[in-house]
Amino acid sequence: MKERDSESFESLSQVLPNTSNSARMIQMSMANSGSAAPAPAGQDQLDRSKWLLDCPEPPSPWHELKTQFKESFLTKAKKFKSLRKQPLPKRILFFLQAVFPIFGWCRNYKLTMFKNDLMAGLTLASLCIPQSIGYATLAKLDPQYGLYTSVVPPLIYAVMGTSREIAIGPVAVVSLLVSSMLTKLIDPETDSLGYKKLVLTTTFFAGIFQASFGIFRLGFLVDFLSHAAIVGFMGGAAIVIGLQQLKGLLGITNFTTNTDIVSVLRAVWRSCHQQWSPHTFILGCSFLSFILITRFIGKKNKKLFWLPAIAPLISVVVSTLMVFLTKADEHGVKTVKHIKGGLNPISINDLDFNTPHLGHIAKIGLIVAIVALTEAIAVGRSFAGIKGYRLDGNKEMVAIGFMNVIGSFTSCYAATGSFSRTAVNFAAGCETAMSNIVMAVTVFVALECLTRLLYYTPIAILASIILSALPGLIDIDEAIHIWKIDKLDFLALIGAFFGVLFGSVEIGLLVAVVISFAKIILISIRPGIETLGRMPGTDTFADTDQYPMSVKTPGVLIFRVKSALLCFANASSLEERIMGWINEEEDDGNTKSNAKKSILFVVLDMSNLINVDTSGIAALVELHNNLIQNGVELVIVNPKWTVIHKLNQAKFIDKIGGKVYLTIGEALDACFGLKV
Amino acid sequence: MKERDSESFESLSQVLPNTSNSARMIQMSMANSGSAAPAPAGQDQLDRSKWLLDCPEPPSPWHELKTQFKESFLTKAKKFKSLRKQPLPKRILFFLQAVFPIFGWCRNYKLTMFKNDLMAGLTLASLCIPQSIGYATLAKLDPQYGLYTSVVPPLIYAVMGTSREIAIGPVAVVSLLVSSMLTKLIDPETDSLGYKKLVLTTTFFAGIFQASFGIFRLGFLVDFLSHAAIVGFMGGAAIVIGLQQLKGLLGITNFTTNTDIVSVLRAVWRSCHQQWSPHTFILGCSFLSFILITRFIGKKNKKLFWLPAIAPLISVVVSTLMVFLTKADEHGVKTVKHIKGGLNPISINDLDFNTPHLGHIAKIGLIVAIVALTEAIAVGRSFAGIKGYRLDGNKEMVAIGFMNVIGSFTSCYAATGSFSRTAVNFAAGCETAMSNIVMAVTVFVALECLTRLLYYTPIAILASIILSALPGLIDIDEAIHIWKIDKLDFLALIGAFFGVLFGSVEIGLLVAVVISFAKIILISIRPGIETLGRMPGTDTFADTDQYPMSVKTPGVLIFRVKSALLCFANASSLEERIMGWINEEEDDGNTKSNAKKSILFVVLDMSNLINVDTSGIAALVELHNNLIQNGVELVIVNPKWTVIHKLNQAKFIDKIGGKVYLTIGEALDACFGLKV
Repeated sequence: MKERDSESFESLSQVLPNTSNSARMIQMSMANSGSAAPAPAGQDQLDRSKWLLDCPEPPSPWHELKTQFKESFLTKAKKFKSLRKQPLPKRILFFLQAVFPIFGWCRNYKLTMFKNDLMAGLTLASLCIPQSIGYATLAKLDPQYGLYTSVVPPLIYAVMGTSREIAIGPVAVVSLLVSSMLTKLIDPETDSLGYKKLVLTTTFFAGIFQASFGIFRLGFLVDFLSHAAIVGFMGGAAIVIGLQQLKGLLGITNFTTNTDIVSVLRAVWRSCHQQWSPHTFILGCSFLSFILITRFIGKKNKKLFWLPAIAPLISVVVSTLMVFLTKADEHGVKTVKHIKGGLNPISINDLDFNTPHLGHIAKIGLIVAIVALTEAIAVGRSFAGIKGYRLDGNKEMVAIGFMNVIGSFTSCYAATGSFSRTAVNFAAGCETAMSNIVMAVTVFVALECLTRLLYYTPIAILASIILSALPGLIDIDEAIHIWKIDKLDFLALIGAFFGVLFGSVEIGLLVAVVISFAKIILISIRPGIETLGRMPGTDTFADTDQYPMSVKTPGVLIFRVKSALLCFANASSLEERIMGWINEEEDDGNTKSNAKKSILFVVLDMSNLINVDTSGIAALVELHNNLIQNGVELVIVNPKWTVIHKLNQAKFIDKIGGKVYLTIGEALDACFGLKV
Repeated sequence: MKERDSESFESLSQVLPNTSNSARMIQMSMANSGSAAPAPAGQDQLDRSKWLLDCPEPPSPWHELKTQFKESFLTKAKKFKSLRKQPLPKRILFFLQAVFPIFGWCRNYKLTMFKNDLMAGLTLASLCIPQSIGYATLAKLDPQYGLYTSVVPPLIYAVMGTSREIAIGPVAVVSLLVSSMLTKLIDPETDSLGYKKLVLTTTFFAGIFQASFGIFRLGFLVDFLSHAAIVGFMGGAAIVIGLQQLKGLLGITNFTTNTDIVSVLRAVWRSCHQQWSPHTFILGCSFLSFILITRFIGKKNKKLFWLPAIAPLISVVVSTLMVFLTKADEHGVKTVKHIKGGLNPISINDLDFNTPHLGHIAKIGLIVAIVALTEAIAVGRSFAGIKGYRLDGNKEMVAIGFMNVIGSFTSCYAATGSFSRTAVNFAAGCETAMSNIVMAVTVFVALECLTRLLYYTPIAILASIILSALPGLIDIDEAIHIWKIDKLDFLALIGAFFGVLFGSVEIGLLVAVVISFAKIILISIRPGIETLGRMPGTDTFADTDQYPMSVKTPGVLIFRVKSALLCFANASSLEERIMGWINEEEDDGNTKSNAKKSILFVVLDMSNLINVDTSGIAALVELHNNLIQNGVELVIVNPKWTVIHKLNQAKFIDKIGGKVYLTIGEALDACFGLKV
């Protein structure tokens, strides 16, 4: 017995190369512990094992919850406390700045900055007015509601928000979301007042949800839509929105209320045989081409960024004039007709909490809240990143929530940050949220004075303006990038895309969330172990597959668990795999040198394990028992805090004779040191 | 700039204690790299970083799937191939042994072993006959079906199974499962033939599912019921079964078909006012006491293990005699009445695949399959563990699946390994599966000759026999143990328990599975980072909370990600937390030494990360950008195979200037070496 062990110890030393100090040191320490007298290094190891075994109790889940709560809320409270010593005006200013960031930046606001913001705001308004009208029709509301939504929410956001570039107002995806989900409850064509009430109540709920996410610091809920899922969802939504525009572009009267591609194409096909307006189609297509060409020019020549921004307004003006002059509206070209002018009417009394649909509305409000926040925060973060400042996610949510709550009191529907208009705002050189104020004021002026001029604006132009904004939502490059990096992420993307396209908006979102979480479960519980070898010249051990240059230690099998959890779902298959591996090694050993036991120790590196459950511990006990029967000893290395605590409580550490070490190197030293 | 850095370098060296060789060595290497000439140690590090960056591509998910498939199936095929050189008879024997393990052990079977098996088999039969009749009534079938189920399945298992102790037959939980789910489809009181057909078809499906789990090596599906969930589920089911027995014990005629505690207690309460049989109750209770007392004696004196085992049979015989002699059946004591004798009738023609309930039946078959397998494998494994041999989970599943398929052809309902009878079999000293054969033969003899004697057996006795078996299913010690070790596991336990008790069997199972998986998601995505410090006297870095003796390195913040996934659900909050930590440290630094930058590097130890998705990479990019703006450099340590591959593909490694190291020690050396 003794001879055999010392033999394997010698073969171990041969494997260790002589290139590095650290390896030589380890050899020395092993030689030391090999001698009868307890060497100081051995003593050190004993101490270090003790560190592991005597570490303080890990915080209980309850305690962790408390700490997290404290971290979230009390750091602010602490800051506030430290202000107590300050004079009262300074305290008030601090409070105002915390709630209304405008008090922070407006003190340093300069005239040159205003010049830039004014230009950006006016450019923004010229794009915003036609888009708002278009999105209102997409949401099945009267055109003025889109304009209302571009007045109040931007003003409130400018006071409370932290982003400097974001352009607030109605957006395509949220408009689609609202109409596709609410038309199932009330048909806007038969009961337009009831539908309007539903939309306002939904907006109110969405605002309440958004604000409470921010106040209770539940920002992580927004993260539950993964980036890949959003890319897929936006792409699908863009195509669905585009298909909806066929109604306006072709001048179709009877159209389906479903949003899936099959129903829409069938409705278009049916209408093509009956009644459609070729005039409308030609008009729409020619202005769509005009807008797309200006965008192309704007991309080629960065100085002409304003051209694509004002092209929609030009289209509206020119087409309205054309219709007015040719009296095309009498020949089948549908126009916007009457738009109610004047400032946003108060709509608190339109909020309807006694409706039988209240539960549905709350649910729809939640979905709208999450989708709107996702878009706003994605937009805000990416532009803040370019300018090099940080967005406070929770503050953003409170700002967006408040603007929607106030919006629902003033005839606005759900607003958020728009991808396309934010890009225009940035390109136009905005400096602060002042550009939003300029835009809101401009839209307000338009509401007061210009609505009558829009009487002859053809609906086909609105359709082509919406269509022209859609390519920005379809991000094929990003989809390819995701495909290259992570195939499962791409699956979530594709799931969301086809879910929206062939099912409905909700199905798309549901598919995306389910795939994303299924992926997490799959990766977390997939039972994996890797065999480790010593990296030449170091005391580091690494995966032998990843690092082909690593050297296996004879007589020992070193495994590392490759998942974060040793739990009911993977523990027993993990155990079986380790046993299978050992049997294989033993078989190999047997064929080579007749019936000589080749494996003496199994070192299980637990450094990846974050948690273990009772089934996991049971599997470890079983593994230990099976190993003992094969004459192999089990050694455990570097269990994390929770894991060592649980193993201790389950008396597993006692069962394996306290063979727990901090590093693999120490474990090997101890194994061979004690044996020789 | 230079002065400041060298200062922090010096303070770093002061922190390093001089106790250990390895630490001294590191100091030396740092001093070396501090000098202008590139030291050999620095060269080494460069090489080692290269190892990390140049490691081969990790296997694609598709490749991994293939490998796993190969591992599962081809190892067997390889073994079989190596047999090709052997003569034909040996090959046939090998094949037979693989499929029918009985050919393995029966060659070494000795007469002394048979003596033990005979005794165990007879003891088993004496317990099995009354239990089988009782469980058949629990499954709402005629009593003989319980006996049928104790004849054919044990014989087939004895030929195909690998466990030596398991006792096959009907069990309480599966009987409850069958009756509670199938009575919703057909009421056995009005259409007993149709109900019987449903039960047989369900058994057939369960067998097919079980066998295919084994053949396609899907054993892990059984693991999806966590240990804690099973403990809770069994406890709840035991109470539900016990409540069902109140019907027999009280002699109630009208009873509810629901299984939840509220409905059952209400039904009992209602009956107590109308009609119940005091004679029946007294009879049942006295024999229940008798059985429990014998069990108590058996526990105290291990040699009298046979006493509790035959107590049920004694109860049956004595009570039957009592009823026969006192003619109590004419005074309201219900008896079993006619039991059809004779061997199992063939029932292939009773399998009904044209029923409108086929989808339901398949679903119920799946649930029965999983619950039955869970019980059988748990029982088999625990006793195999005691005797020190290994069960092949997949072979077990095939054996149990086949025995149920054949069972469904021969009038048996779903059988599995019984907790209580297996314990008796083990205590009676069984040696091989031969004891199952002895038991089956004995039950067969009873079916042929003794069924007429059971005419006067009171149903209350069957109820008390079932009741006496229930305490074994309620494992309070284990529940306490689980509570101590893992609070979330205990939640799954309690969920399953109350789900069964107040909802239904299916609801209990569903609750358990949902809680178990929610727990996995929660643990996997909970965003956690730990700060690391150097363990005194080593080059190992560990959590400063877990190891209070660890020493932080000044000028550097070392973080380790505490979850296995950096994904959409936790990436951005992780990033925010790191930034918050840095700002706090900087604030601290500022207050201490006026406006001196305290943090120069952030070292992110990725050794825990198993995977990262596109959102995770985006968050890393954002973190890097934010750090750069704060004048802090980001260094990455030990990313795993998949992670480094993805980071490389996303060009993140290039972005951080290739600052990737294998260990934290090397990262620190490189940081300070390059700066000085």
